[in-house]
Amino acid sequence: MTEPPCPQEFVDLAHRLADTAGAVARRYFRTVVAIDDKADASPVTIADREAEAAMRRLIEREHPDHGILGEEHGTVRADAEHVWVLDPIDGTKAFITGKPSFGILIALLRAGRPILGIIDQPIIGERWLGAAGRETTLNGIPARVRACPSLDRAALYATAPDMFRDDDAAAFARLQGAVKLTRFGADCYAYGLLASGFVDLVAEAMLQPYDYCALIPVIEGAGGLVTDWRGEPLGRAADARLLAAGDARAHRQALDVLAGREH
Amino acid sequence: MTEPPCPQEFVDLAHRLADTAGAVARRYFRTVVAIDDKADASPVTIADREAEAAMRRLIEREHPDHGILGEEHGTVRADAEHVWVLDPIDGTKAFITGKPSFGILIALLRAGRPILGIIDQPIIGERWLGAAGRETTLNGIPARVRACPSLDRAALYATAPDMFRDDDAAAFARLQGAVKLTRFGADCYAYGLLASGFVDLVAEAMLQPYDYCALIPVIEGAGGLVTDWRGEPLGRAADARLLAAGDARAHRQALDVLAGREH
Repeated sequence: MTEPPCPQEFVDLAHRLADTAGAVARRYFRTVVAIDDKADASPVTIADREAEAAMRRLIEREHPDHGILGEEHGTVRADAEHVWVLDPIDGTKAFITGKPSFGILIALLRAGRPILGIIDQPIIGERWLGAAGRETTLNGIPARVRACPSLDRAALYATAPDMFRDDDAAAFARLQGAVKLTRFGADCYAYGLLASGFVDLVAEAMLQPYDYCALIPVIEGAGGLVTDWRGEPLGRAADARLLAAGDARAHRQALDVLAGREH
Repeated sequence: MTEPPCPQEFVDLAHRLADTAGAVARRYFRTVVAIDDKADASPVTIADREAEAAMRRLIEREHPDHGILGEEHGTVRADAEHVWVLDPIDGTKAFITGKPSFGILIALLRAGRPILGIIDQPIIGERWLGAAGRETTLNGIPARVRACPSLDRAALYATAPDMFRDDDAAAFARLQGAVKLTRFGADCYAYGLLASGFVDLVAEAMLQPYDYCALIPVIEGAGGLVTDWRGEPLGRAADARLLAAGDARAHRQALDVLAGREH
């Protein structure tokens, strides 16, 4: 709310990071690359590692005092005032099947709070940027959420049904039953669509900070809100459950439905 | 197999139909349009109707003897030797939520058999063309399925989990359990990805002829195969269940799993 603006030099650097990672992603997209299986069985590509390494080199050169938390290459200086949070290819399953819904996620935390976020789709050529003190933009043009006064008019997205287990699956099924339409498979691109006013809700589970930190400034700067499924700020929690909404009314109703309360 | 080639003039016309429909789709994509609810509750946009009307005008002018079967404006001359099958916007839920996975589907039947198919994504700018007597192309460059000798290495797509009801849902769940990864939400774009060798299987249900006729020449011309869930040709059946595969071995195994047989 009273967060001081994000300095322009950090915005400029974030754009260069996205440009750098995008060039790597484009080079490997739809080529045959070796697929490793990580411990959590999600495929990770050479592109993922190269893109993150390239971004880290840029940050280290320009701001050696900044911390970095990356999906592929771990964490350095986690307690720094400024910490970059990087997911070079969010949506690796989309990436390896040739579907351009994956994205590059870049966040900058200041004292633990995200003050800058980028969602970049380097194949379609779309970049959402949110930063403290300015409006969210899509390719430089202001993006804005749309009104959605009630849940039965809402378009809901989630990456995949299998991200919801046990109680979460039951809660998501209730939400699916309450909205107008549900679609899967947009990955982080769904949050950009929400920021631009084409989607009303995104509900996901099992997210890590590199999955969600970048989304927060994008959505908040477009007039929306992001919390966990209890309505609390996300912080840097692991295995987080996220609820993003363009309209606070739909957000409140969705929280009630997820919790099994009347709405 | 011994199907005579599709005449070049029909290929040329199909490209112009796709160009025409694409221009309409691009004009309405991510603009606010009135959403009607059809009887089956799927949203249909002004773009859908305008694009089909524009394609029909072109066909009527050039080949008044050809039949037309369109999703929006019905059927004329269904018994003609040549019948065009049009779905101006396949994936209307993707379209209205701003996600460029929808597609324009154009097929030409000769004596009831599809001899030409186009899957066009007019926002990303990708067009798969399959036609009897030639290789399938993506933007003019040959596309080819990849090998997938066994189901446990397969990437499977479907538009949405809620297209499967009752026994179909159980059958699809078995298939999901047998493959390496499952993704939802690519709409007709998934068939293009299969033709280009990035996806191994697409299994869907409740498809109409305008949903699937265009896919058949695209996939067959790329070396893949398309049948119903019993392994039979699709014909012009309503509410069809479709199984597309890049590799006949994975196709055979998937048929077994869908039918509840050992594989």
